[in-house]
Amino acid sequence: MKSLLEQCKSLKKASAGLAVMETRAKNEALLCVARALKRNGKTILMANEADVKAAEESGMKSSLVDRLRLTEARIDDMIEGIEKVVSLKDPVWNSRDVWTLENGITVSKMSVPLGVISIIYESRPNVTIDAFTLALKSGNAILLRGSSTAINSNKALVDTVKQGLSESSVSPDIIELVEDTDRSLVGELLNMTDYLDLVIPRGGAGLIKFVTENSRVPTIETGVGNCHVFVDETADLEKAVAIVENAKIQRPGVCNACETLLVHSSVASQFLPELKERIGDRVELRGCERTAAVIDVVPAVELDWETEYLDYILAVRIVDDCDEAIEHVNRYGTKHSEAIITNDLANSRKFQRHIDAAAVYVNASTRFTDGGAMGFGAEMGISTQKIHARGPMGLNELVTIKYVMNGDGQTRE
Amino acid sequence: MKSLLEQCKSLKKASAGLAVMETRAKNEALLCVARALKRNGKTILMANEADVKAAEESGMKSSLVDRLRLTEARIDDMIEGIEKVVSLKDPVWNSRDVWTLENGITVSKMSVPLGVISIIYESRPNVTIDAFTLALKSGNAILLRGSSTAINSNKALVDTVKQGLSESSVSPDIIELVEDTDRSLVGELLNMTDYLDLVIPRGGAGLIKFVTENSRVPTIETGVGNCHVFVDETADLEKAVAIVENAKIQRPGVCNACETLLVHSSVASQFLPELKERIGDRVELRGCERTAAVIDVVPAVELDWETEYLDYILAVRIVDDCDEAIEHVNRYGTKHSEAIITNDLANSRKFQRHIDAAAVYVNASTRFTDGGAMGFGAEMGISTQKIHARGPMGLNELVTIKYVMNGDGQTRE
Repeated sequence: MKSLLEQCKSLKKASAGLAVMETRAKNEALLCVARALKRNGKTILMANEADVKAAEESGMKSSLVDRLRLTEARIDDMIEGIEKVVSLKDPVWNSRDVWTLENGITVSKMSVPLGVISIIYESRPNVTIDAFTLALKSGNAILLRGSSTAINSNKALVDTVKQGLSESSVSPDIIELVEDTDRSLVGELLNMTDYLDLVIPRGGAGLIKFVTENSRVPTIETGVGNCHVFVDETADLEKAVAIVENAKIQRPGVCNACETLLVHSSVASQFLPELKERIGDRVELRGCERTAAVIDVVPAVELDWETEYLDYILAVRIVDDCDEAIEHVNRYGTKHSEAIITNDLANSRKFQRHIDAAAVYVNASTRFTDGGAMGFGAEMGISTQKIHARGPMGLNELVTIKYVMNGDGQTRE
Repeated sequence: MKSLLEQCKSLKKASAGLAVMETRAKNEALLCVARALKRNGKTILMANEADVKAAEESGMKSSLVDRLRLTEARIDDMIEGIEKVVSLKDPVWNSRDVWTLENGITVSKMSVPLGVISIIYESRPNVTIDAFTLALKSGNAILLRGSSTAINSNKALVDTVKQGLSESSVSPDIIELVEDTDRSLVGELLNMTDYLDLVIPRGGAGLIKFVTENSRVPTIETGVGNCHVFVDETADLEKAVAIVENAKIQRPGVCNACETLLVHSSVASQFLPELKERIGDRVELRGCERTAAVIDVVPAVELDWETEYLDYILAVRIVDDCDEAIEHVNRYGTKHSEAIITNDLANSRKFQRHIDAAAVYVNASTRFTDGGAMGFGAEMGISTQKIHARGPMGLNELVTIKYVMNGDGQTRE
């Protein structure tokens, strides 16, 4: 087994060739991997079965075991995911900025791969294939560090990827899995500044915090979403009920689900009973004092405004105007996805300009903030920081730029 | 005097208003500052005189004292710099990506300010005004931490800026100077993740290393440039001599100056004597063994290939082809600015694709890698990392994005 340092060196070396590879060759390599996945399905499922068994024996929650479990259908989904990425435009060596200096030098701001990306992630083994696929298409080598609970599945998947690549013109050395899941190795990984260009943590808040606090390699923070829907005075209340229901319930465990509802005081007495009738049997409502005067709720405390429940719980607060809603969101939000339901043009404009978040909606559910829904085809995670990438990270977020300068002898005066 | 924490809180608060300010108001505020600089010229020069005197008494090198010294002409340059930035396009709330999803939601990827930027810099007090000007125009509040040797100058400059702003509609709270230059405060600053969105170190290698290794706030590494010029077999040798002379000598102390020359073996016997005749009296040449067989040079050692001299010294190595040149550059370079002098189309294409650097030149001096020369109007520094910004950082590198999503009731299925 290679050491982490050997893996990093090998990835860096392989990344140079990958960075300048033709789109056609990269697509063919991806399809080789898809075929290998099809072929190795049984082996992968057997390896996964060992992980699932160990997880069950360790007493893992059944919802988490379900995330860990692979099936033939889930392997088919991975294959479909690869085919989808094959169909996407190559993000490398494109430009929308070409200009000529007064001295005649032509400057082209070209997109180029980052080099070597590392992703540190939890549980779901499909991330292994998603991350690899996006990395290859964007010309980046990838170092994967999955969780110990999925180690057998990840080994089988990475073996399969390497097997597929060995049948293509892309080197199998562009992907490495950290097989020793001892936590100290993560610390070592986060110091590999000579070899890694980016580290993406994808998982729970604890993992993300550990990585962003300890990494010397540049990182992109992903995930935490304390998202709000604000129902304004002029909102179409029927649509507002449907949007809040969708943003809260359609999939409560994800980062773009709504956690706090803000309601304009002048429509609260009509809107809140309608909402409670629609979702009250499925969602625990925790309201401010003014909310409690309108509908029956659990009293909300300060902590409720700060909490990403990821559950069938919704905090509710009555506000007196759009400004108060904006203030609440900018104070308690995590800069992920925020929505206003309104028919007032000035308020919609104000909300979208003043809210500091990756995605700010007017009259739509917050649930659309992801690479699939936004048309990126796939995503590496959702950035909640401002540097480099914000919001869903698709292929175009996995590149940097290079200024290509063409002259005919120019010197500086 | 405010504590650092109080300064950070105040900046964050002020940044919200600045982020949504009209271009006209920002430009008027910049011109108020320009007028205040004109008016306070004498006060600023007196403050600077104190810094210069202290520096001279401490035995500072005269070249560094010169960088520290302000004159009426240098204050006029600052004012001109402000007027230049006023004339540039506002980088905020623009988009080149607007699309509509299948469900009818229109997505606009809008540019928005980062929030609060901090710059940690050495000596030159003009950076104080440059950094403030770019920050204001791009809608960002700014925390300045200059060196102790320029503290009186920086205080006078920031007082002047605040005075100018107080005559405008922009709050004077958008700029703060860390007046206590104790180093421990830098450590504190690098942990202000709740308030700062970006830290830019600008100065020597030691400062940059300290910041990138210790910061929990995202940083952009600037500056170190071990740049190469490769004279290929088919180069126009007359142009090649002029380019090497320019890249090495025109201003040897800057990061885009050439430090190592690579020469194709088939032209070395003609090119090297010509070069030596042109620059040999001003530049110490340190050559590989093959170079020493052609011209009289100081023998180069391994360390020479790694060194950013920032001086009248040039390392010289003979290589056998373009591939060997690319290998040398990717091994020893710092990913800043690299040039090939050639008339071979295939080699020019290969060099520009395979070299991993912010700027890769064909047939031009490496000295053009800066915001002024590239037409950005001004710059905050030159990024040598790949995340967020690469190469000169102008106004467009000081923004992030926000997805503005407009619907009419869409929910996710």
